[in-house]
Amino acid sequence: MADPMKIRANAANGMTEVKVLMAHPMEGGMRKDASGNVVPAHYITDVTVKHGDKVVLQCMWGQSVSQNPYLAFKFKGGAKGEKVTVSWQDNKGDSRTDEATIA
Amino acid sequence: MADPMKIRANAANGMTEVKVLMAHPMEGGMRKDASGNVVPAHYITDVTVKHGDKVVLQCMWGQSVSQNPYLAFKFKGGAKGEKVTVSWQDNKGDSRTDEATIA
Repeated sequence: MADPMKIRANAANGMTEVKVLMAHPMEGGMRKDASGNVVPAHYITDVTVKHGDKVVLQCMWGQSVSQNPYLAFKFKGGAKGEKVTVSWQDNKGDSRTDEATIA
Repeated sequence: MADPMKIRANAANGMTEVKVLMAHPMEGGMRKDASGNVVPAHYITDVTVKHGDKVVLQCMWGQSVSQNPYLAFKFKGGAKGEKVTVSWQDNKGDSRTDEATIA
């Protein structure tokens, strides 16, 4: 099980800015370790961000997204005290969902 | 035709951080104008970011993403002088592609 994400969500002027830092190795499958063995591909493929039950952002990622990915965006609406939920799935079937309260 | 995007791409420590500001009304189709008429939905549905020919990020957006959307993320690789290309398409068939040089 991966470590929790760090999620910040701040509402201002009718919009909410979301910043997410995910803990994931994001191995592209092209890298060799110190012994010369290929490190198997292990990367997040899908990210979904919800405000309550409503999907506000959906991304498909490939092998090139960096280790411990960072993602930031804004959506319309959102009020202090409401919830934002971020979920990811990776190519090995692992997944994680974390929640933040809009500040 | 929409205004150009503002794109910044900076390489450091084997990664490139990309920040994009898009000029788009992002009308969700739920808002009424001063005369009480519904403002038709007009929003970006697809965003693709490429490093050279390689797709590094792909997003599907809905009606909730804010006016003049902001998006930031990092990808592995990228060197100063190389190109990053950002493209979007909206629900009315309009599209735009802009390019930045990694600094």
